[in-house]
Amino acid sequence: MHSTVKPSFRYQLEKQKPRVGAGGTTRGASVHEFPASIGIAGVSMRLDAGSMRELHWHANAAEWGYVISGQCRTTLLNPDGPTETDIFGPGDIWYFPRGWGHSIQGISPGECHFILIFDNGDFSEDHTFSITDWLAHTPKAVIEQNLGVSADVVAKMPKGEAYFAKGPVPNDRSFDAAPRSYPELASRHRYPLLAQQPRRIPGCGVQYIASVREFPISTGMAGALLEIEPGAMRELHWHPNADEWQYYIEGSAEMAVFLAEAQVVIDQFEAGDVGYAPMGAGHYIRNTGNGLLRVLIGFNSGHYQSNDLSAWVASNPPDVLASNLDISREAAKGLPRSPLFMVSERDAG
Amino acid sequence: MHSTVKPSFRYQLEKQKPRVGAGGTTRGASVHEFPASIGIAGVSMRLDAGSMRELHWHANAAEWGYVISGQCRTTLLNPDGPTETDIFGPGDIWYFPRGWGHSIQGISPGECHFILIFDNGDFSEDHTFSITDWLAHTPKAVIEQNLGVSADVVAKMPKGEAYFAKGPVPNDRSFDAAPRSYPELASRHRYPLLAQQPRRIPGCGVQYIASVREFPISTGMAGALLEIEPGAMRELHWHPNADEWQYYIEGSAEMAVFLAEAQVVIDQFEAGDVGYAPMGAGHYIRNTGNGLLRVLIGFNSGHYQSNDLSAWVASNPPDVLASNLDISREAAKGLPRSPLFMVSERDAG
Amino acid sequence: MHSTVKPSFRYQLEKQKPRVGAGGTTRGASVHEFPASIGIAGVSMRLDAGSMRELHWHANAAEWGYVISGQCRTTLLNPDGPTETDIFGPGDIWYFPRGWGHSIQGISPGECHFILIFDNGDFSEDHTFSITDWLAHTPKAVIEQNLGVSADVVAKMPKGEAYFAKGPVPNDRSFDAAPRSYPELASRHRYPLLAQQPRRIPGCGVQYIASVREFPISTGMAGALLEIEPGAMRELHWHPNADEWQYYIEGSAEMAVFLAEAQVVIDQFEAGDVGYAPMGAGHYIRNTGNGLLRVLIGFNSGHYQSNDLSAWVASNPPDVLASNLDISREAAKGLPRSPLFMVSERDAG
Repeated sequence: MHSTVKPSFRYQLEKQKPRVGAGGTTRGASVHEFPASIGIAGVSMRLDAGSMRELHWHANAAEWGYVISGQCRTTLLNPDGPTETDIFGPGDIWYFPRGWGHSIQGISPGECHFILIFDNGDFSEDHTFSITDWLAHTPKAVIEQNLGVSADVVAKMPKGEAYFAKGPVPNDRSFDAAPRSYPELASRHRYPLLAQQPRRIPGCGVQYIASVREFPISTGMAGALLEIEPGAMRELHWHPNADEWQYYIEGSAEMAVFLAEAQVVIDQFEAGDVGYAPMGAGHYIRNTGNGLLRVLIGFNSGHYQSNDLSAWVASNPPDVLASNLDISREAAKGLPRSPLFMVSERDAG
Repeated sequence: MHSTVKPSFRYQLEKQKPRVGAGGTTRGASVHEFPASIGIAGVSMRLDAGSMRELHWHANAAEWGYVISGQCRTTLLNPDGPTETDIFGPGDIWYFPRGWGHSIQGISPGECHFILIFDNGDFSEDHTFSITDWLAHTPKAVIEQNLGVSADVVAKMPKGEAYFAKGPVPNDRSFDAAPRSYPELASRHRYPLLAQQPRRIPGCGVQYIASVREFPISTGMAGALLEIEPGAMRELHWHPNADEWQYYIEGSAEMAVFLAEAQVVIDQFEAGDVGYAPMGAGHYIRNTGNGLLRVLIGFNSGHYQSNDLSAWVASNPPDVLASNLDISREAAKGLPRSPLFMVSERDAG
Repeated sequence: MHSTVKPSFRYQLEKQKPRVGAGGTTRGASVHEFPASIGIAGVSMRLDAGSMRELHWHANAAEWGYVISGQCRTTLLNPDGPTETDIFGPGDIWYFPRGWGHSIQGISPGECHFILIFDNGDFSEDHTFSITDWLAHTPKAVIEQNLGVSADVVAKMPKGEAYFAKGPVPNDRSFDAAPRSYPELASRHRYPLLAQQPRRIPGCGVQYIASVREFPISTGMAGALLEIEPGAMRELHWHPNADEWQYYIEGSAEMAVFLAEAQVVIDQFEAGDVGYAPMGAGHYIRNTGNGLLRVLIGFNSGHYQSNDLSAWVASNPPDVLASNLDISREAAKGLPRSPLFMVSERDAG
């Protein structure tokens, strides 16, 4: 943190030129594009109906997904047990452990838009392995032997990585469907985040959260959706055990990151921006707009821990606060006496 | 993986000049000799009857051993409990946690040949600590005080590292023996791998495996012995949680390693060669000879996980496969519908 | 370990110029000042009555503390549950997990002197976050909103990092006190190390120890206090699972560190010096003075494991020892037959 260039904790993800394929687009932010994001990378992806992010796996990162709009279907190979096919809609999340093979296909009439978060800032294409890339560069006789298919079938397969592929939208009445025999609220790899009863701070906002406690498969990552009302603020806090990656879904915000040694970096965010707060670094998020602020947040630990300024202050005897902050004991007694989590504009003294 | 030099995943271990001592020889492959092997190192060692790899420990790696021929006796200092002396024959394995003091001595009439696998590619002599090296370079008065022996005994000890030492073959009827009061099938540090009922794929081959489930002490490593019939193949697969280190015991093989971004590296292997497949990288092993292929395999995780191409294909609905591989639904239905693990030559379509 | 400069495992901590503040002084040894100490850093701090190391946290290390003299009070914010205020006297230890906010205040008539040990050699000021530094560099309107205080209170707060702050000595009869309703021997974050029944080797010395077994919160660190009588020695040993950091409280000592490949580094220590033995490296500590030697020791693992030379020798059959050390079987039988841990001067043979 001693470099002479002032770091930035903002990256304008949705303003970048996307990679475009058969009905799909993707924009990525790893540590290569967004130098501050050492511990977590992210992607914003959009798929038309029937368009598929092909069968692939990530060698160096687990994947946490959140659907913003539309619907998609995933398939997942579980090395320890049965495979799984799940359907996701807005507000649903998934978790795929590092190295597990999966695919994602848009299945709703319009576009399906989702955010992917990876627990490794060095996530990149050379750590992503696609089935077509693999089959195209393996001797054809080996593929025939492995898949038990004839040479002419192999000859028709893609000559290189497809990345995106397009097919018919799956139909629950078709022979391909494996409908569930009874409905499920959550499954091993799917958790409906926006269906939970969130933490609610009247006049300030709401926090939806999925840690390993709520979503047991997500041992290495946790995620949250914050809704903050105009003028209100997620108060000053830090996470002792994880980096934080943010995707601003809606609204305008100010975030300040405290890096110790008199260094605070303040950035302004709009919808489509990505933010980052390193493990241990103090920060706050304040809604600077006139409408609701909605932020998706990912952590690279399955356990959610936050140390909030108000909780810290409330946990210290007044004499410590008076001495430390060089204020009167009278003033010290006016400081918060219980945790706040969020504060509204009118909470100012 | 963007370097301009094409990586090789083969190292001709047994063709290297060995280190030779009192009745023993050793050949090592760390990341210094075999650059691909970043996560795992290995050694091929041979001991005559009575010859001993002296008391030593490894500061930065656990040790997993497999006996190819002959018999040996190990002694092990357990910092948490009783010490252990065990006898090993062909097909038996051991596991010594990182930093535990141990010795290995050949005890069979002929040579004892065994393979050692370490869970750190940077394993090397400067991380290996031998008792004679330690005693020889510590003030003699300190050694006398510590061991309670006279100056003339200390004066006779080796003036530097012995590495190999030679003594009489231990005799179970001698006073030195501490015979077990009853026979044991497995002990804390010894597991008879070739005595297990293996996974058997008729017409293709066999896999013997020891993970932390079968061999509880081996928390950081797992190992396997693969036997593959002529023309058959351990199918395309990858390990999401571990690097793989291979020692070719017998036969001839082809291995291809898929590194994403259109890069597949194909190598040919003979008995005495070492191979490597990085965590997450796709690979297959095909018997290219006329006899049985036998490969010893070590992983740097105690948990064995494999994602096999046939299991992946079988776990996806036909419409996903047809769209992704750009083949007809008819052809997609001809793809494997259950996991294969190994395939024979006649399995080709 | 192949560098041409001979490493030193001694650092004269108390001879360094301290950082001085409002009634407090501190001297630190990280890998930047003491290059050998890669895995563990330490600090010697002194606080006058009422002087406080202000509210702060460490982003990259847990903190293990030991009080040498005087008394202090700590406050701690626990992100998972209730906050804690504890009082410490000589021989008491604390453990604060990485990133948890805390303060330390001297409360005894004279100076309180304590040693802090951190499980990261790269511990430094740019990873230490203080409350005054944070508040001083955050927009004032944000502080007013967060704390619910008026602009004139915020205006009086420190303009930069306080680091040390001075206030009245807390009074158990004051309104600020939260006296315990019943006395406690140990609490979640406090363990009275010198009140335990230690391991006692008559004629040689004593070891007090606190690992995760005795002090459950200290999952990432363990600590010990060694008392060694004149001429006696903590015998040759190594720790397979942790680095060792030493603070010499009283007396004179010799420590030799064995680094393999014929390299042994011998240093002489006095009170106020810091020593270091890397994970896996053999070492001994010998009292070279006329009085008692007292050494505080910290490990960067919660589990205490030691492999001692006598235990190793005792665990091997005599024929292995005779062959390995090139001594007669007669002499081999004179070697230790049970673990010693410490040896006195008259134990020499």
